[in-house]
Amino acid sequence: MSYTRIQKFRRCFSKRNLDAYLVVHDADIRYLTGFHAQESWLLVDCARAYFFTDSRYAQEARKHLKGITVKESRQPLRKELCQWIAGRSLKRIGFDERHFSVFALKELKAYMPKGVRLIAMNGVLERLRILKDPGELAEIKHALALNIKAYQYLRRVLHPGMRERDVLAKLSDFSRKHNIEFAFNPIIASGPNSTFPHAQITDRRILAKDILLVDMGMEINGYKSDLTRIFVFGTIAPSVERVYRAVYEAQQEALKGIKDGVLVSAVDEAARKSLKKQGLEKHFTHSLGHGVGLEIHEPPRLSVKSPERLQAGMVVTVEPGVYLKNKFGIRIEDMVLVTDHGCEVLSQSLLSSHPFLLK
Amino acid sequence: MSYTRIQKFRRCFSKRNLDAYLVVHDADIRYLTGFHAQESWLLVDCARAYFFTDSRYAQEARKHLKGITVKESRQPLRKELCQWIAGRSLKRIGFDERHFSVFALKELKAYMPKGVRLIAMNGVLERLRILKDPGELAEIKHALALNIKAYQYLRRVLHPGMRERDVLAKLSDFSRKHNIEFAFNPIIASGPNSTFPHAQITDRRILAKDILLVDMGMEINGYKSDLTRIFVFGTIAPSVERVYRAVYEAQQEALKGIKDGVLVSAVDEAARKSLKKQGLEKHFTHSLGHGVGLEIHEPPRLSVKSPERLQAGMVVTVEPGVYLKNKFGIRIEDMVLVTDHGCEVLSQSLLSSHPFLLK
Repeated sequence: MSYTRIQKFRRCFSKRNLDAYLVVHDADIRYLTGFHAQESWLLVDCARAYFFTDSRYAQEARKHLKGITVKESRQPLRKELCQWIAGRSLKRIGFDERHFSVFALKELKAYMPKGVRLIAMNGVLERLRILKDPGELAEIKHALALNIKAYQYLRRVLHPGMRERDVLAKLSDFSRKHNIEFAFNPIIASGPNSTFPHAQITDRRILAKDILLVDMGMEINGYKSDLTRIFVFGTIAPSVERVYRAVYEAQQEALKGIKDGVLVSAVDEAARKSLKKQGLEKHFTHSLGHGVGLEIHEPPRLSVKSPERLQAGMVVTVEPGVYLKNKFGIRIEDMVLVTDHGCEVLSQSLLSSHPFLLK
Repeated sequence: MSYTRIQKFRRCFSKRNLDAYLVVHDADIRYLTGFHAQESWLLVDCARAYFFTDSRYAQEARKHLKGITVKESRQPLRKELCQWIAGRSLKRIGFDERHFSVFALKELKAYMPKGVRLIAMNGVLERLRILKDPGELAEIKHALALNIKAYQYLRRVLHPGMRERDVLAKLSDFSRKHNIEFAFNPIIASGPNSTFPHAQITDRRILAKDILLVDMGMEINGYKSDLTRIFVFGTIAPSVERVYRAVYEAQQEALKGIKDGVLVSAVDEAARKSLKKQGLEKHFTHSLGHGVGLEIHEPPRLSVKSPERLQAGMVVTVEPGVYLKNKFGIRIEDMVLVTDHGCEVLSQSLLSSHPFLLK
């Protein structure tokens, strides 16, 4: 699997007449090798791949990386790499300007042997990673299945009077029981706290009729899921129901527009138009969604400002939200796989035109 | 508090004839403002400070930031910032090359009004943050107190036959009960797993005489702690005890050498020399320690290769380790505050020339 990915990657940079490419971004390295480490580099040349790391990861790397040479360094990687390059005939080495700080690039250049050029070629791995292969989809679906299970679990165990932090405790129980990690710190926001799209968890008690917004993700072998659901205790206030419906409809409108070749801006626009009918579009203050994979936020961004088009094989969130200041916020977030003629809602089993009503 | 920090910071960059400084690193922004957000920028000029953020954080930021103007942006921050700068008389704006990717800096420059120069001035905030003020020390000590409590809790609840993952479950119980977060994913490594300095947690059962290495940290208001202790079930094997003693002595030698003005390399060297007497120095494969504060690894690095000197007010880990391939690894990690004439071991109450022996 990783071997094929490296070959594909090699084809991309070879076309641009590069002798090698230096990968430094953790998620990119994990994508190419299946191995997860920090502060390690992967150099892929026309024939082989070399993993530069330090003593912390070297032993494990040797165990896990088949067909990739592990170089254990006792000095800064830039030195190790440049000394190694000095003995080779590499002349043009690609890199991604987004994954090098201005400082790191200067330092690397200072050690680079004469005649070796570092050539910016951005987004190569991003473009490969944007389309998920079957192995990746399986991991994402696995994470999603547990994420969905977690919401079902919450439906059983939540009760009025709990604090936001108690909800987190329940989720932690769940994640431990299933031996799975969160993809990010869950957002658990009740009542007016739900009007902050990135609210911090508090000790606020959740009372009858309160909105409870739970935005959470799970992670399997680095692959992530990301869903948001709304819970209401007891009966739902008509004002809340109206907004929930509007957000749900906006999401449905967006989903209808998703397929290979469509502008992402058109999909975002569809959700906004739908909210406009209810006079709510100005309360939808973020973009509609984002890609998910080895990173919780990765391309494409479903935004009115993006010139990008959807492609079959992308996995994205669709998450319209309406935040009524000092009152409550509603966001519904699902994950979909873009297909040739539409999309597959990967979290279909959770989709509902009602929030989760709890006794 | 934050106000004084901003004033100090302003003094640093004003000396270099800068009209303003653009802070983009989360931990730096948190240090200056006490506010924690992502993808937000802080511009400090000679008179005021401006926090550029998006809808996710704007409401909370306005609530928390006193005396700092919050600019909520619906466009990329670089555009918002540059439009705002266009109406000002700022000519020289400082930035840190380590916190801008090559790409981000290019993008920012593309939007910058004519006549405005971005000037690299690295490490300004790093140098301020390297010395902890009393408020910061209090947070670190608070995190450490809970960290120590967690080890005491483990001493009570661990028993042979548990899996590494069960130990994590116990630690998670503890963290929830005390409403505190881990500073990083704990390292819980038993038997030969302890020979990997950054081991992943497994389902391995911990048996009698096994080493159990627990490297963990807690976090209070962003400030972190970082400790490592060794547990042994039942009786300790003489070969393990010998190595434990050697590591402990190496740590003691290092601690003796710590005080204001001393080269960090000399401190690292002291530990290595001590291990050399036992013929173990080649198994000490990482540097001796690192600064801890708002980041789990921050300057200074206690390394033979660093030309830096210790200063009173630094908080660093001292963590010699010996890793015997396929056998076991021992690391002892404490945190100390560097003082004028020595150091204060902040985790003193845990220090012992024996591992934790468990029944």
